Amino acid sequence: MRVLLTGFEPFGGSAVNPSWQAVRLAEAAPPDGVSLSTALLPVVFHDALVRLRAAVEESGAEVVICVGQAGGRAGMTIERVAVNLDDARIPDNKGVQPVDEPIVADGPAAYFSTLPVKACVAAVRDAGLPASVSHTAGTYLCNHVFYGLMHHLESGRPGRRGGFVHVPYLPEQVPDGDKPSMPARSIAEALTAIVSAAVTTTEDLKETGGSLH
Amino acid sequence: MRVLLTGFEPFGGSAVNPSWQAVRLAEAAPPDGVSLSTALLPVVFHDALVRLRAAVEESGAEVVICVGQAGGRAGMTIERVAVNLDDARIPDNKGVQPVDEPIVADGPAAYFSTLPVKACVAAVRDAGLPASVSHTAGTYLCNHVFYGLMHHLESGRPGRRGGFVHVPYLPEQVPDGDKPSMPARSIAEALTAIVSAAVTTTEDLKETGGSLH
Amino acid sequence: MRVLLTGFEPFGGSAVNPSWQAVRLAEAAPPDGVSLSTALLPVVFHDALVRLRAAVEESGAEVVICVGQAGGRAGMTIERVAVNLDDARIPDNKGVQPVDEPIVADGPAAYFSTLPVKACVAAVRDAGLPASVSHTAGTYLCNHVFYGLMHHLESGRPGRRGGFVHVPYLPEQVPDGDKPSMPARSIAEALTAIVSAAVTTTEDLKETGGSLH
Amino acid sequence: MRVLLTGFEPFGGSAVNPSWQAVRLAEAAPPDGVSLSTALLPVVFHDALVRLRAAVEESGAEVVICVGQAGGRAGMTIERVAVNLDDARIPDNKGVQPVDEPIVADGPAAYFSTLPVKACVAAVRDAGLPASVSHTAGTYLCNHVFYGLMHHLESGRPGRRGGFVHVPYLPEQVPDGDKPSMPARSIAEALTAIVSAAVTTTEDLKETGGSLH
Repeated sequence: MRVLLTGFEPFGGSAVNPSWQAVRLAEAAPPDGVSLSTALLPVVFHDALVRLRAAVEESGAEVVICVGQAGGRAGMTIERVAVNLDDARIPDNKGVQPVDEPIVADGPAAYFSTLPVKACVAAVRDAGLPASVSHTAGTYLCNHVFYGLMHHLESGRPGRRGGFVHVPYLPEQVPDGDKPSMPARSIAEALTAIVSAAVTTTEDLKETGGSLH
Repeated sequence: MRVLLTGFEPFGGSAVNPSWQAVRLAEAAPPDGVSLSTALLPVVFHDALVRLRAAVEESGAEVVICVGQAGGRAGMTIERVAVNLDDARIPDNKGVQPVDEPIVADGPAAYFSTLPVKACVAAVRDAGLPASVSHTAGTYLCNHVFYGLMHHLESGRPGRRGGFVHVPYLPEQVPDGDKPSMPARSIAEALTAIVSAAVTTTEDLKETGGSLH
Repeated sequence: MRVLLTGFEPFGGSAVNPSWQAVRLAEAAPPDGVSLSTALLPVVFHDALVRLRAAVEESGAEVVICVGQAGGRAGMTIERVAVNLDDARIPDNKGVQPVDEPIVADGPAAYFSTLPVKACVAAVRDAGLPASVSHTAGTYLCNHVFYGLMHHLESGRPGRRGGFVHVPYLPEQVPDGDKPSMPARSIAEALTAIVSAAVTTTEDLKETGGSLH
Repeated sequence: MRVLLTGFEPFGGSAVNPSWQAVRLAEAAPPDGVSLSTALLPVVFHDALVRLRAAVEESGAEVVICVGQAGGRAGMTIERVAVNLDDARIPDNKGVQPVDEPIVADGPAAYFSTLPVKACVAAVRDAGLPASVSHTAGTYLCNHVFYGLMHHLESGRPGRRGGFVHVPYLPEQVPDGDKPSMPARSIAEALTAIVSAAVTTTEDLKETGGSLH
């Protein structure tokens, strides 16, 4: 089974991005029976999608999992829904800051992840690490890439699945401990558990992962 | 201009629901030129939509704003997107707990609010109260009602707009101050500002209200 | 019964300080039988204590309650202990930033509040507002004034009691609602409840207000 | 140089206590030149101090660092002050719940840590892990042990230093990621850095570690 994992370059003044560090660590120790390829995406609207689509096609991956940083969250969060909206709170790495623009003109308002999100959460917890389902990937590059991925997969690529995973800060990004963090090797272990769940689960678990608001 | 405001009954063990308290206070002092009607919705899947659709039709409202409690948030949050998903973390007031079911079979994955969400945020802040845009209304009753509202309005009711606003706990709901709160009269003032912005804004403000994740 | 309430001037770039706004509102409507005087303290190490001691002597107050802003807390917090330490994270309003200096050379490491802290918490909750006991007033001006007050009262002023109360941000200080807040009139109501409890309680309630860490 | 590290047994319904797990890991790899002994303390008022004092005497430790869990904190926190107060929010492991009782009758209101707290914070950050100074250890077992330790050391044991360190939850204690956590091996690395700083620092760093409230 071929799986593509993507991470992002640093942004917003940070020198590192936990998503790429963890993706690289995960790549070094793939689950049995999984052929893992990786791609580094720029934190640039549109360019990120060009790079992503190329990687999806080059890899021939049957499962694509994009990974991004969610500074402030304490656990792995498996995103459930991507929305057709760019509303950038800060400029991207090329200085562009779209506000209230669709990602795909005439695209649907949203796509749901086609990963087994509940099984992915359970797999991370079974590995002793914290995880939950999230119902918003924001309106910046992470959601942009998530929506672009799902639009690409849903447009004539039947049977290929994809989704997005948000990860916490690395410990060195929060030296005074005012925000939660997770070591890169823990994030990598969690990603590996997610990849395993994604390739082995045919029907997702039927247990609540909902939020009241 | 006719406006409908809805609130919810209490749920989850609470004796009160700030949404209904504030809606009632707002009803007592509507903005000039606005004819305000209100409806109390049950915290029951499906039943809440039956009641909502009836209130929409009875009121003839051109603008419908549903209001619900988001315990833990510190300001007013104007919801931007409703998703076609029920995933109840706790049972509703009739004991029903849907998990991973669509709200409308074959409905679109999501609807965007047709309120001017940025203008609504600005109006609340101009009134000296905290507000922001939110990109998830959860997967419980609030999202259920929000999605059901948008589906109803988008199905053959052109020119009628709607959306959802989440409000904080009341002070008496958090006696030890471990979560944020807002007095009912402050919430009502904020709702009044939102109603005014909704009926007077023809084109929404073009300024960021986005989130990074 | 004579009571002195003190508040602080703005600091740290803020245009307002909720402590002084609320103290002024509380002064306008004192509890029955209470003669209330107030003093505005500068956010300046040492100078604040000079002004405080003068106000204590001028007022002849039997109960002194100093009030300060604790940005980020969601309820009223009744401070229990003042420590003999200045460690300023930011400079004061005169640009002075003491690090690891005692407030009173050869003073004891700490003083406990002589207010009935549990009764004060209960009084605020009875008024429908959130409150709890806090076990640190920080190491900036609030703790400085709290320690200086207790040292003054404990040095030959038997029967005169004092303490410190921290209050949340005002709503206008957190326009995007990323931190909790409380309207000035709510804070004032809570202060009035605290004053009443302080002057009428002879023996504090014996119920836990502790924290695990 | 002889150093004693103590941890606690589980409490409050948890099956594990990160303090003891990390102390055991740290013991297995002490810094050069340090003879490290450890002790497991019961989460029982008074009994914990009996066990602690015995371990201090048996070990002949010149530096004693007690470690406890602070569920909800995201980094290592080096406690600066212990107060003479038991106010238990929950019963201890023997079912005893003291409220508003002194730890040592006629003891001083507080003791300051005699560890170089700023150097300890810097050492943890240098190891790539989050840390800060804390000004309250609560009013439960951690503060009880911290105060009892300092009282013991200050009563006729010149030159022997001690203090308290709070550590976050383990990842497996927060499966849904609603609170921060840190892996046991990261906590152990941080403790080792603290031990090294404690035994090699003769004069603490003069840089702010203060908090505004």
